[in-house]
Parts: sequence; C-alpha cells; structure tokens
Amino acid sequence: MKVVKFGGSSVASATQFEKVAKIVLADPERKAVIVSAPGKRFKEDIKTTDLLITLANSVNENGYDQDALTAVLNRYKEVIEELSLDRQLLTEIEGNIKESISLYRRDYERLLDALKASGENNNAKVMTAYFNALGHKAAYISPKEAGMLVTDEPGNAQILPEAYENIAKLRERDGLLVIPGFFGYSHQGHIVTFPRGGSDITGSIIAAGLDATEYENFTDVDSIYCVNPTLVDKPHELKELTYREMRELSYSGFSVFHDEALQPVFQKGIPVCVKNTNHPEAPGTRIVLERQINDQPVVGIASDNGFCSVNITKYLMNRELGFGRRLLEILEDEHISYEHTPSGIDNMSIIVRSHQLYNGKEERVLDRIRQELLVDDVYIERDLAMIMVVGEGMKHTVGIASKATQALAKSGANIKMINQGSSEVSMMFGVDGATVDQAVKCLYYAYFVD
Amino acid sequence: MKVVKFGGSSVASATQFEKVAKIVLADPERKAVIVSAPGKRFKEDIKTTDLLITLANSVNENGYDQDALTAVLNRYKEVIEELSLDRQLLTEIEGNIKESISLYRRDYERLLDALKASGENNNAKVMTAYFNALGHKAAYISPKEAGMLVTDEPGNAQILPEAYENIAKLRERDGLLVIPGFFGYSHQGHIVTFPRGGSDITGSIIAAGLDATEYENFTDVDSIYCVNPTLVDKPHELKELTYREMRELSYSGFSVFHDEALQPVFQKGIPVCVKNTNHPEAPGTRIVLERQINDQPVVGIASDNGFCSVNITKYLMNRELGFGRRLLEILEDEHISYEHTPSGIDNMSIIVRSHQLYNGKEERVLDRIRQELLVDDVYIERDLAMIMVVGEGMKHTVGIASKATQALAKSGANIKMINQGSSEVSMMFGVDGATVDQAVKCLYYAYFVD
Repeated sequence: MKVVKFGGSSVASATQFEKVAKIVLADPERKAVIVSAPGKRFKEDIKTTDLLITLANSVNENGYDQDALTAVLNRYKEVIEELSLDRQLLTEIEGNIKESISLYRRDYERLLDALKASGENNNAKVMTAYFNALGHKAAYISPKEAGMLVTDEPGNAQILPEAYENIAKLRERDGLLVIPGFFGYSHQGHIVTFPRGGSDITGSIIAAGLDATEYENFTDVDSIYCVNPTLVDKPHELKELTYREMRELSYSGFSVFHDEALQPVFQKGIPVCVKNTNHPEAPGTRIVLERQINDQPVVGIASDNGFCSVNITKYLMNRELGFGRRLLEILEDEHISYEHTPSGIDNMSIIVRSHQLYNGKEERVLDRIRQELLVDDVYIERDLAMIMVVGEGMKHTVGIASKATQALAKSGANIKMINQGSSEVSMMFGVDGATVDQAVKCLYYAYFVD
Repeated sequence: MKVVKFGGSSVASATQFEKVAKIVLADPERKAVIVSAPGKRFKEDIKTTDLLITLANSVNENGYDQDALTAVLNRYKEVIEELSLDRQLLTEIEGNIKESISLYRRDYERLLDALKASGENNNAKVMTAYFNALGHKAAYISPKEAGMLVTDEPGNAQILPEAYENIAKLRERDGLLVIPGFFGYSHQGHIVTFPRGGSDITGSIIAAGLDATEYENFTDVDSIYCVNPTLVDKPHELKELTYREMRELSYSGFSVFHDEALQPVFQKGIPVCVKNTNHPEAPGTRIVLERQINDQPVVGIASDNGFCSVNITKYLMNRELGFGRRLLEILEDEHISYEHTPSGIDNMSIIVRSHQLYNGKEERVLDRIRQELLVDDVYIERDLAMIMVVGEGMKHTVGIASKATQALAKSGANIKMINQGSSEVSMMFGVDGATVDQAVKCLYYAYFVD
C-alpha cells in the first residue's frame, strides 16, 4: 500500500489532473492520494493559496472583495470545465468558502487558516470527482473523517498521537482515498493548518498511519541532485539516499522537503520516493533508512551563505568545567540557535545564521559573553559560507578528507573551519562567502567527474 | 629584570649547583632565583619530595622513622659538604624538619604540606649560602617574607590577588633573591603547597609580581620540540612559539609546563624562555604573546591516546533549541569534562578522556542521554587518539588542511573526526589509537622534512 502526494504544480491544471490520474491508476498499490492546492501553471502565475490569502485580507464588516473570490473560483472552474465534471461542484466550492468567511469573519487567524486550507480541501473534492468520472472508485476523505487531530494554534498545527490510530482504520476502506493536504482538525473543532511544507506533512502522517510500504512524493523535478543544479550543468542524479544524508544535505535548501515533514515516515522507517509528475518514467530518488554503500562514498555536496562565527578565546578555557554549557545558555537565552561549535584547546567558535545577530542583539550577546564568561577575546566574523560534503560511505573510506581539502585548495578557498563528527555522515567546511561557488564546483569535479 | 627558575634535576647535586650559579651570575638581569627541591641525580634516584612523603607517612604518636629523616638530610649534606658550605646549615635544616613534625604530628594533611614544602625551602637556603660563599650578595626570601599569600586548602593553594602587590616590593631589594618554589602561606599562617607544577607556578607568580622582562625556566632539555622526540629522531627545535600555540601543543604532555603554571605571566604578557641547565648556550624556546609569522605555518604536532567519543544521533536535533546546552549540563552534572564537540546536522560527538567513563558511570551517562534527551541513538567509541596540528600561521595559508589530510591518508589512518575553529591556531584529527604514531610521523615529514 502506497501513499502518493502531489505538489501544487502537479495539480495546477486539467492537464496536470490527467497526469495525476494516469500515475495513480498505473499502480494498484497506490491507495491514498494527498492533494495540494492548485499551484502555478506558468512562471508568473499566482498560487491558489496566495489568492486565498488575498481574499482573507479583503474580509471586513461589510463583506469581502467579490473579485478576490472570483479569482479563486476561476482556478477550479477551469479544471472542472476542461475535465467536463459536474458544474454543481463549483457551486459547492463557492458555498464552502462563503461559509468559512461567514463563520470566522471576526477572527482573522481562524479565517486565514480556514481559507488557506480550502485550497487543498476543494482541490481534493475536484480530484475525487475526476476519478469517479473516469469510472474508478474513489472517496474524498476530509481530515475530520480521517481523524487527523492536531493542536489548536492557528497556522502551527502539530499532529496528536491519537491521530495515527484513527488513520489506521482507513486501511479497511475500499477504493482510492483522496485526502487534502496541509491541515487537520483540533479537538475544539477548528481547521488548523500545518506550519510549513504542509501537504508533505499530511502525506507523511497518512503514510505512517496507514503503515504504507512507500510514500511517493510527486513534484516537478526528476530527482534530488548531488549538487545545486544552478551551480553545475546537469549534475549527477541521486537514485537512493538515507534519511541522514537527506538531512545533512538540507543545509542548502537542497532538499525538496521541509525539515519536519518526513519525521512521521522516518520514525516508521517507511521509504520516501521523490518523483516527477511530468516525467513519471524517471526512477526518482528514494530516501531510505539504510542503503547499500557502493563505490561512491560521497552522495552530495550542499552549500549555503549567510553564516557568521562568534569566535571566543580564553586562556585555560578547556580546564574550566561548565564553560561551554554557560556559553550555550547565553545563546539560548537570546533565542539564537547555532549550527556547530568547532573548538581548539582555549578557543571556540559558534557558527550561527547571520540574520540572528542584527544590530543591538549582536552587541548585547558579545557584552554578555565578555562579562559573564570573562573571556580574553570575542569577536564576530561575518560572510561565511558552509559547505557540507555528505555520504554514509565516507565512514569506511581512507582519503575522503584529503580529496575534499585538495579540491578546496585548488579552488583557492581558504578553509576557515572544519567540522566532522564521529558519525562521519558529513564533513563541514567553512569558507569565505565569496569563494563558496567555486569551491563547490571543484568539490563536485573531484568527487563526481574526475 | 629576569626571574630564573631551576627544576629538580637542575639542583640535584653540587655539580648542578655550580652550573646554576654560573648561569645566574652570567647575566646581571637575573634577579630572582626560584629553587626546586633536589631531584633525581640518576635514573633510579629518588626525588627529595618523595623521600619527604615517606617521612611524613612514618610519623605517628611515637615519633617518626629516623632512617627516613636521614635519607632526606643526606641529600642536603652531600651538597653542603661538596661545596664546602657551613655545616651549621644542616643542623638548621634538621631543626626545621623536626619542628614541622612536632607542630603538625596530629594533622596529616598539614604535615604533608609542610614536609613537602621543606624540600624546596631548605634547598633555597643551601643555594643562598652557596651564592654568599662565592662572594655574591644573595638573600633567602621565604614565601612568608615575599608575601605570597594563598588560599588555605592543603595541597591546592591558589594565589591571592594581594600577593602581587607584596611581591612588587621585592624590586627594591639589593642583590640576588633566592625563593623556594612550590608553596605559599595562608592568612591562617599555614604553609600550603600548589597543586601541580609547583615551582613553575612560583616562578610565574614572582615574575608577574616583579613585572620581569622575562621568565627563564631552566630544565634538562634544550628546547621544546615540534613533535614528540620519542616518535621522530632529532626533531626540529622550536625557537619561538606563542602562548596559544604552547597551549594547543599541551595535549600530548608535550609542553614542559603544567597548564595553569603560566597563567600569571601570560596575563602580563611576560615572555617565557625554556632553557637547559646542562647546556645553557643553546638558545632554548621562547614563549611569547605574539610572534612574527615566518614561512613555516605549522610549528608543531601533538598527539595523545586514551580518548573516546560519545556519539549521539537524533532526527531534527539541530532544530531543537537547547539540545546542546542540555547535553553539556548532563556531562557537567556527572563531572565529565570534554575536549571537543564536532557535529553534523542531526548528530554530535563529545570527545572526552576515556578514564572519565569507567564502568557504571558510562552506563549512567548513556541512560541519562537516552532518557532526558530522547535521542535516536547514543553509543561510545573507544580507543581514539587525537592529533593536533598547531601554528598561528595556518590562518592565512591555503592548503594546510590539504597537506595534513594527504599525509594522514598516506599513513593509512582513517580520519574519524576533524575539528578546526575559526581561530585556526590548530586543526584536530581523531584517528584510531593503533594508527596514531604512524600518522604523526607522516605529518612530521609532510610539514618539516619534505
């Protein structure tokens, strides 16, 4: 039993609906279909979710902007007409949206959640109608019916443990199950949306709840690449990578998933397959718990700019029990999350994303470190880039670091930081922001071309 | 004005006393002489301090072991006779020791401190008599007279801030000042010894208090070497290194100083010169605050065995604010000090000295990490060795890491951990204990021979 999720661009038009149906019906294992809101049909197009936010913002004591509602309805109308579905469906969608406006007109946060969720919700209804029109047994399952119980904070739903037991009962249902992504229901009876990567989270929860054999995530790329495809022409496609590798690569927005989306399937060890709705023959990328290590110890290279390091020196620092803990306490107290803490004997660097140290906060943090930890020196180094060289096979291969450092030397990048833990799934290098792209290219050629 | 300290082997016999006097009198800048207790004269010899501990252990209600006292006195007797000093001195030494026994016979800890301290104290008196016999103005200055006020915990003296003001007044004294190392006086009037590296600490405090231009530390090696001389034949001698470099090299017991000994001179920026009593013409090694960086970016390679790493994995660890702080809190709570914490996105290794994780404690720490931090996995990897490649010049040199990792690959060592912070005074490599010696040799050849 597979759970299949389709992203916004995969369900943006009638043509895309046809592709989706073809994909779903090609494999009888595909049981549950998670549907996003209609995304962009072309580069300048506006996503339905954004149209719904505009509509929500237009709601006031006197009503709402009729044009904003029409813009939303037109997205469904186009699909319904082109697929020759029952036009009564559009009337139902309009009724559903107006009902949400009427119910929550005085509570903006709830209104926003209900309208945003309607994008996925109504699209799932259209998808169900299309499967039925094609003569296939399919049922729209609302998150309420599925028992997707979540916490009640608007825009920040967290799944509740009992939801999984409810979802498991759907296994007994006949035919296809079409479920809207992006939201659940709270015990208080409200629609609440997930924080980010919403439909991915729904798919992951449904796959975990149904104990699926695979979670297929259809989007608009053939696979995850071993390096950012804007830096390197036609980079190597990844056939398989582990969850740990995927996480290490996520530094660069490289991963197609939001961080938290895959946690439910990770915990059950369910494989995830990233595939392309527009090119379903491509094998895609499988994300698994464990994989066979082949000759290629490195699977990918991720990089990102916008880091800085807080560099601290204090004579006899490493003899001072509690120094590191007190330093991290100051950061936590100032709501700063850190990435790594490479250290020497009497010095320590804290690598953080620069946006966390804006004016004022930067000075306060430095002052606190000076005064509370009595350090000899503390300063901030800005415009750092981080490079992650990732691969489970690195653990057992002599010479991996040597290849990386040679490639970096060749690129002219001065290595400012190196960090590699005993788990050895990744090696991190800190370099000047200006040198990072060339550095990544040289690493790519060293590991994947030469 | 220079402060000169002589280690135990430098003041172990009459011949050594003659060398010391020659050295001190060769430079009129040498003002204060810090004297250790007589050390070993030959490999199987017993240090006077150890003879004194035996004497202290023999003290009971009925008296003490006369042979143990004679063994101590014989060390001074030999020197006094060979240098033709006044034999009355030996009677004074005997009286001094007996007085301590009588005073502290019911308080073992105080007795031990007083007897241990007498080793240095009486040797300083003999040294003063020798300078005087040679016709030079020299005065024995007891730590009490010098105002070396310390905290009152036996065997763990910490200098009190007011001591420096007292010591500064010694600048006005004429002639040589001969001061015993290893102990101070508490406000309660007790003799209290320093924890470890005792005479080095005294010399460092006196140099700081007198605001000396240099602190000369005479021992029995020509210099600090760039690598452990038991691993490599005749390694490169270090002419100059910074305090930071010296600290990074101290990993391997490579440094001739105990960690805390140099803090007083470091804080005043006073240069330290390590020299050989048996070969004073050799230039020795100078330890300074800042040095001119030459063509050689790496100054030394230190290594040590006996480490282990606690390896922790948790999905989404790096999104969890406070994770690192809570982990370090558990370690602090269990009185475990750590060396480094290299990390990936969702994994973190804590490198500690293995002796801290003995049976029972190991399991408790792992259990606490599992239960309090809800990690996916935690395990301990033993028999790790750490290698530090050290040098201030590394900061501005492209390709340093490349040279190191190539040398390690050549040696056949698999790099398990790498840690280099933004300060870039050092690069740390973690390797299997069995491969470390070969790895250090290959690094030495890469940086200092090829």
